[in-house]
Amino acid sequence: MSNAVNKTAHAFSKENLQNLLNQRFFYAPAFDIYGGCAGLYDYGPPGSALQANIIAEWRKHFIVEEGMYELDTTIMTPAPVFETSGHVARFADWMVKDTKTGDVLRADHLVKNVLQARLDSNDDARAPAPADKKAAKKKNAPVKLEDDVVAAYESILAQLDNYSGPELGELCKTHKIANPETGNDVSDPVEFNLMFGASIGPTGHIPGYLRPETAQGHFLNFQRLYEFNNRRIPFASAAIGRSFRNEISPRAGLLRVREFTMAEIEHFVDPLNKDHTRFDEVRDTVLSLLPRDVQTQGSTQIVKMPIGEAVDKGIVANQTLGYFLARISIFLLKIGINPDRLRFRQHMGNEMAHYATDCWDAEIQNSFGWTECVGCADRAAYDLSVHAKKTGANLSATEQLKEPIFTDEWVAEINKKTFGKHFGRDTGAVQQALLELPQAELMAAQAGLEHGPVKIPGPGFKTFEITKDLVTISMRTKKESVRTYTPNVIEPSFGLGRILYCLLEHSYWAREGEDAKRGVLSFNALVAPTKVLIVPLSSNAELAPLVTDVSAKLRRAGIHARVDDSSASIGRRYARNDELGTPYGVTIDFASVHKGTMTLRERDTMKQRIGPIDEVIAVVTELIEGSLDWDTACERLPEYSGQQDV
Amino acid sequence: MSNAVNKTAHAFSKENLQNLLNQRFFYAPAFDIYGGCAGLYDYGPPGSALQANIIAEWRKHFIVEEGMYELDTTIMTPAPVFETSGHVARFADWMVKDTKTGDVLRADHLVKNVLQARLDSNDDARAPAPADKKAAKKKNAPVKLEDDVVAAYESILAQLDNYSGPELGELCKTHKIANPETGNDVSDPVEFNLMFGASIGPTGHIPGYLRPETAQGHFLNFQRLYEFNNRRIPFASAAIGRSFRNEISPRAGLLRVREFTMAEIEHFVDPLNKDHTRFDEVRDTVLSLLPRDVQTQGSTQIVKMPIGEAVDKGIVANQTLGYFLARISIFLLKIGINPDRLRFRQHMGNEMAHYATDCWDAEIQNSFGWTECVGCADRAAYDLSVHAKKTGANLSATEQLKEPIFTDEWVAEINKKTFGKHFGRDTGAVQQALLELPQAELMAAQAGLEHGPVKIPGPGFKTFEITKDLVTISMRTKKESVRTYTPNVIEPSFGLGRILYCLLEHSYWAREGEDAKRGVLSFNALVAPTKVLIVPLSSNAELAPLVTDVSAKLRRAGIHARVDDSSASIGRRYARNDELGTPYGVTIDFASVHKGTMTLRERDTMKQRIGPIDEVIAVVTELIEGSLDWDTACERLPEYSGQQDV
Repeated sequence: MSNAVNKTAHAFSKENLQNLLNQRFFYAPAFDIYGGCAGLYDYGPPGSALQANIIAEWRKHFIVEEGMYELDTTIMTPAPVFETSGHVARFADWMVKDTKTGDVLRADHLVKNVLQARLDSNDDARAPAPADKKAAKKKNAPVKLEDDVVAAYESILAQLDNYSGPELGELCKTHKIANPETGNDVSDPVEFNLMFGASIGPTGHIPGYLRPETAQGHFLNFQRLYEFNNRRIPFASAAIGRSFRNEISPRAGLLRVREFTMAEIEHFVDPLNKDHTRFDEVRDTVLSLLPRDVQTQGSTQIVKMPIGEAVDKGIVANQTLGYFLARISIFLLKIGINPDRLRFRQHMGNEMAHYATDCWDAEIQNSFGWTECVGCADRAAYDLSVHAKKTGANLSATEQLKEPIFTDEWVAEINKKTFGKHFGRDTGAVQQALLELPQAELMAAQAGLEHGPVKIPGPGFKTFEITKDLVTISMRTKKESVRTYTPNVIEPSFGLGRILYCLLEHSYWAREGEDAKRGVLSFNALVAPTKVLIVPLSSNAELAPLVTDVSAKLRRAGIHARVDDSSASIGRRYARNDELGTPYGVTIDFASVHKGTMTLRERDTMKQRIGPIDEVIAVVTELIEGSLDWDTACERLPEYSGQQDV
Repeated sequence: MSNAVNKTAHAFSKENLQNLLNQRFFYAPAFDIYGGCAGLYDYGPPGSALQANIIAEWRKHFIVEEGMYELDTTIMTPAPVFETSGHVARFADWMVKDTKTGDVLRADHLVKNVLQARLDSNDDARAPAPADKKAAKKKNAPVKLEDDVVAAYESILAQLDNYSGPELGELCKTHKIANPETGNDVSDPVEFNLMFGASIGPTGHIPGYLRPETAQGHFLNFQRLYEFNNRRIPFASAAIGRSFRNEISPRAGLLRVREFTMAEIEHFVDPLNKDHTRFDEVRDTVLSLLPRDVQTQGSTQIVKMPIGEAVDKGIVANQTLGYFLARISIFLLKIGINPDRLRFRQHMGNEMAHYATDCWDAEIQNSFGWTECVGCADRAAYDLSVHAKKTGANLSATEQLKEPIFTDEWVAEINKKTFGKHFGRDTGAVQQALLELPQAELMAAQAGLEHGPVKIPGPGFKTFEITKDLVTISMRTKKESVRTYTPNVIEPSFGLGRILYCLLEHSYWAREGEDAKRGVLSFNALVAPTKVLIVPLSSNAELAPLVTDVSAKLRRAGIHARVDDSSASIGRRYARNDELGTPYGVTIDFASVHKGTMTLRERDTMKQRIGPIDEVIAVVTELIEGSLDWDTACERLPEYSGQQDV
């Protein structure tokens, strides 16, 4: 193909990418003039725009397409909510302390980093001696490991997320894992709750937390949402917003932060029917799956399979869960994630959040490893049940049954003639005691009464004695025409910052035959922060009216364009915009003034075409809307071979 | 006009509006199943959509139109940032305590509520006896005030925001203001800081605050933004995000909350030139102004004036401030705020935030009074200066001067032959002391040397004596070709929840001749949560494919539509959607199946038109895009007189 570009001429350099992201202000450590604060980042103009475009597509792909109900709930949350949800007791990570310096480390990260470093060192030791002996000498001397040790380490790493805190402590002892920065031993792991606390009100009497997820805001509003949906199930709510987690020692850039924007869906479904009406639309979507079984065997071998087959075989529990896994995959690929670096990993038993019954993570591979970017959990009836129990609110749904359901049950009837006379002032209490008697005991009492008096428990430690002439116990058939149930919840939960970072890595490359520091971010037009760069050839006043005119026309066509009229050379201005990922550029020169033409440059190929200004605007509009590809655009606009790039 | 509708047949009822907003889940008290928490609200589907549409228009009107740089910065902020900015010391309200119950009240609100209640009571007392004597009896007996007392109260209320805490305390004593709920006296006012505190990290060693505004995130990133703009001034950054204020006793619904979404612009400008290149575009925009002078005279009489005249007369300090006031007004009217209920009020001296040198609030009238919804402050160089001073970071801009600037200054030169010999080991210290001598002292020293030795201050309490043969002081001319300065900041800051609430009140009315509880929210198509309601006449299966078809066509046209296929009557479904503010409805009936027609209903008039399905879709698309008005639409589609509404 004439337009093919070699994007792998240079090996990926995390350092070069970081420099680009910092220099072009995609994002930067927050408060850096104050020395910064780990785990907090500010997004600059291109980062904000990229994030806004990802969110806009998310809204379209999920909320609009599926008719979900968007919510905007508060971050500040009174403590009782998270006491009920279980977060106060269980939303924690295991941390260890350096026994001498007191430095705090996350236990699972410590085990992972130390064992991985040992495996890497072993690889070096087993590799043939490097040609460049100096380079080899600079490193710490590699240490070779026995085969059985290598196997043990690999098995531990494959199921790392499955270990409890005490187990992680055991691993540290067994494998002599110390703080790599000091060489000191570490303490036994202790739990650290990840929620930020807060005091509400001027007297500080109302304890609260900053939410670590948006989910509770959906559950607490269930009644209102259910009414809004005309009391029908299923339906879904969605929220995009900030959440907070007081991470123990955040280090991996945007991948582990203390404050982040997330997008969450809570899909409320009948527990007896988790089929999805649109499942057939995604049935043939092929996903890379890493099921629980495979991992507990110590392997990370993925299985490629259409989601229809995965649900049919029971690998994925139900259609609704499967439907969302497929829709998540489609969304991620649409914004530009590399399909070869995306997998869906099922949680192992111990790893699951306390509220989940099944969970699959969409993991995206990047230079830090495989990172969870979307969690898709079946929270079952957990949340609605605990909140309903705690508050007494009705968080259930009802279904008018087409066929009434008949159920048999034991019922106690009193003999009005004798009952009141016999029990006197206890009459009410005995009646209540009979009503509260469980079915099994009623059945036993019925059998007992055939042989004489029966004792039943009353309030406190009281008991009452009943006889056959006072009470009749018999089996009755009950008819129910309405079924009441607590809906189950399927929850796809997106970490937008993580997705954004992986997209940056997947989009980054450096031009063949040039300095590896001349980077390009090949965003597609859907997510690119700026779609078109308008470049006047010089600061000559003759060009200015055309620049204004082209800007206005693009704005009217709904295209986000930017003018770069700085004094830098055209080549330098284009290079800067390659770093910003701007897919197209138009150059306004003196031919624009005299002949009414404009050139159009494509970012990846750097090829330029030329045509009348309005035709170029029409072509670039179609390119950005996705109704035209570059090869077809080249048929409409002849090649330009005048002013050369760079 | 044939399509005129009487929207004032029923008096405005706050209670009816509240019921509607609650029932249709525009918003609701957060955590209400847990008893709620004052000042925290959740937005439901229509409220979220309304807010999202207001934000989208804000982005278009400000960020896109003006080429601003969007930022997304963190809420969690280390304490030193707010220590420097002055928020730790001064971002506070005055509160008083009920001396017996300990209840906490905001001092200015207490004074306002009590005096306003006395004035209202006085009005009742002076009014002619009401026809309905029972109604009069139910109220507390009205109390008549003397004329001079009324005048005093009105004057206090007009400048309420100008009182300091101690002054508010004096007012409580002078006018015997007690807690109206208990009748108890209140304590002297004390300051209460409105920021929520937080501890960052597992050891909690990093104290922090939740930001009360997004502004600091802009200032701290100034260097990066300035680079991003190719080191040119002016430019503006913009951020939309959550902020937090721990309000003392939030009561007025969405108007005073503890967590809110705000949109802020920081426009960085040269302090020597606050003109705006696009000022002429808004020069003729007429605003309702309430200048500082008028208020300090105890009046609230507005002045209507084109912004050009206001800037020319110096009522508004500069073009950039004036430009933003006009753009704010245009934005608010565009989303549907009633122009007669919008004014721009200038802050009085004591009222200004500690960082501001001038400030105008866009205030919107609603049933709670006039509420600040947008602040537009000139923060001058305050923020950049204090952060630069504290951190040593360079937060200044430079300008290459076209003509170099020549400035005269006094310079001290040492006589190398004698100086070192004379001062010995003090040589360096004396040189440094001469360098640090201010211009005025150098001038004085020059004059003094003519008459003998002169003493100059050295380090600590030392002094040095210099003479004419050791040092020569003379006037030199200095040439500067680069000017370095700290940019000033003009800050328009929008409280989106307040704007949203005022818009709800301004849009609400009840139909003439019907129950006042049958409310309508007349949102324009730009902000309406849903643009088109699709109503199938019945649940007959014949209609379903057409419903799907029309939905898909509207979605393709970019129109947000919703289907209401519930079993309620057509009239009921339309009434429900009038409450949701949906401007148009299309009905699919058997004529749609057999003749391919569809009716189109306009919300305010309830008039229905009919036409071929695709023509109706084309018309409604143009109506929503704003390229067609209803009267013209009526020329394209004939009247429909079949199935009646209600």
